Amino acid sequence: MKLATLKDSTRDGRLVVVSKDLTQCSEVGHIARTLQAALDDWAYVGPRLERVADGIETGAQPTIRFHEHDAASPLPRAYQWADGSAYLNHVELVRRARNAEMPESFRTDPLMYQGGSDSFLGPRDPIPLGDEAWGADMEGEIAVIVGDVPMGASVDEAREAIRLVLLVNDVSLRGLIPSELAKGFGFFQSKPSSAFSPVAVSPDELGSAWDGGRLSLPLKVDLNGKPFGRANAGVDMTFDFPQLIVHAAKTRPLVAGTIIGSGTVSNKLDGGPGRPVADGGAGYSCIAEIRTIETINLGVPKTPFLHFGDTVRIEMKDDKGHSIFGAIEQTVTKYEKAG
Amino acid sequence: MKLATLKDSTRDGRLVVVSKDLTQCSEVGHIARTLQAALDDWAYVGPRLERVADGIETGAQPTIRFHEHDAASPLPRAYQWADGSAYLNHVELVRRARNAEMPESFRTDPLMYQGGSDSFLGPRDPIPLGDEAWGADMEGEIAVIVGDVPMGASVDEAREAIRLVLLVNDVSLRGLIPSELAKGFGFFQSKPSSAFSPVAVSPDELGSAWDGGRLSLPLKVDLNGKPFGRANAGVDMTFDFPQLIVHAAKTRPLVAGTIIGSGTVSNKLDGGPGRPVADGGAGYSCIAEIRTIETINLGVPKTPFLHFGDTVRIEMKDDKGHSIFGAIEQTVTKYEKAG
Repeated sequence: MKLATLKDSTRDGRLVVVSKDLTQCSEVGHIARTLQAALDDWAYVGPRLERVADGIETGAQPTIRFHEHDAASPLPRAYQWADGSAYLNHVELVRRARNAEMPESFRTDPLMYQGGSDSFLGPRDPIPLGDEAWGADMEGEIAVIVGDVPMGASVDEAREAIRLVLLVNDVSLRGLIPSELAKGFGFFQSKPSSAFSPVAVSPDELGSAWDGGRLSLPLKVDLNGKPFGRANAGVDMTFDFPQLIVHAAKTRPLVAGTIIGSGTVSNKLDGGPGRPVADGGAGYSCIAEIRTIETINLGVPKTPFLHFGDTVRIEMKDDKGHSIFGAIEQTVTKYEKAG
Repeated sequence: MKLATLKDSTRDGRLVVVSKDLTQCSEVGHIARTLQAALDDWAYVGPRLERVADGIETGAQPTIRFHEHDAASPLPRAYQWADGSAYLNHVELVRRARNAEMPESFRTDPLMYQGGSDSFLGPRDPIPLGDEAWGADMEGEIAVIVGDVPMGASVDEAREAIRLVLLVNDVSLRGLIPSELAKGFGFFQSKPSSAFSPVAVSPDELGSAWDGGRLSLPLKVDLNGKPFGRANAGVDMTFDFPQLIVHAAKTRPLVAGTIIGSGTVSNKLDGGPGRPVADGGAGYSCIAEIRTIETINLGVPKTPFLHFGDTVRIEMKDDKGHSIFGAIEQTVTKYEKAG
């Protein structure tokens, strides 16, 4: 089952079931008006949405044309966005950029930050940036949306709670991160609104690429139309999604509709920190990583952070080359406050 | 106007308007079913709720009895909970406890963390604690609920966006904080679910105690029935709410229903770090502060963190001695996972 939220006059948009090939969709307001409403009552609503999805594939269900650019993020606003850092190659590289060692405990105790979830961008919305000096960067990630997770959940309970899988662009402001993290309370201004893929899919849509915890397919990250990252999301993911969920639920429950992110997808290569796509590597899912590689190899970073007008595209294709989630495609624009 | 959310069979409860004396309320499902729905459409809904509030005071409006213990937190789940640390005496004391200096920049650049907002506790709900060794502590705070705030909001826009004022118990797990903050990404497991006062009030209910940014009344924090804190929330608040909102909205908008916290209310005394209530001081709104004072005076902390069975009560009274927001009153209980 593939689900999307069409933008409309409401804050939460309207839920649609999308065909596997992303060309058609059916309105399901008679079942659940919004994705959050569906998640709130998944035991009842989920099977009904599945029947619509089946009807779309057999032709029994009336459909309208689905356009990815009409979609909001599947949850335009969510009650929780908690982002892990499961790919330690990313953690090692961004820390090396600021001359910080990665503690050994990071291999057993997941890193996770509480993100802002009240105002997500749509998958084709511009990224509004106040100042290029803020050092805007994309972060290509995988995420899951969970049902209710009890406090102290087991790995099995966590795995069972995964309802949907989707992609994220976790926009980061690298120029603001060092001083903000130095204050000790984590990210706030340095993590502006994230954007999610047009479509969120149930795990069964992923076939053998999904093992219940990891999604083993390359994440395609393009910058200004050129391949930038092709890292496989199933490789070098030290903590899988159930482990990240268990971490998040250690001291409190997670409400249905909580989104848990993987952190920036990042692959090592022959034990090293990977290699750019242009040099035959899997590349990187954010600019910060390639800047670290450049600093190691050339002494200085060469690739700038995002400028106004730059376009980021994040997508994942199945083994037949079909887009699974639709594409996040965002252009950085100068933010001008209205009024 | 005073608003509350009664617990019912739904996740978001049902909105009621409460009498000024907190004894009566009116159901307003015909205007807005939930507080979030009211905040989503405040320009239309707000004045209608005000008319109900007026009718309650004149007797023109049918009412039912209001019981604080029937109330959920005004927003049982919210899209954002961002907690500042506006009382620098608190910051200085808790940092001193871990031998950390407070940087000078903290006087001009607010500290703020992104909190979990998906699963708040009700004001009279127990605090479920997995392990006493986690070092549970209360934090008595003031908070505001805002309407939509544009990215890059001015102080005036921020002030205008304040819709409601309420109290918070920002439960903290002191035993988990040092290792979590050492990881660099801020709080996650060390900040379990917070609880809010039964009633949220519009700023005009606060009269001259509210100057548009600060609430100048003592916050009554009791531990096991004994006065623990009487700090005045209008004193030593280095950043007022509009400044905290501006900080939160620097790089992204805040959606209506965002809750912004003041941080633990804490007063200095004669330039010093305050004094316990028992010693004639204003006391403290969390245990961590008094433990620091004890460490300074006695060499070791004497007051333990919360044990199973301990009860915390947080309330604020107006200058006539009437409770403004109702009381948060929570007992720490051993968490036992169902099933």
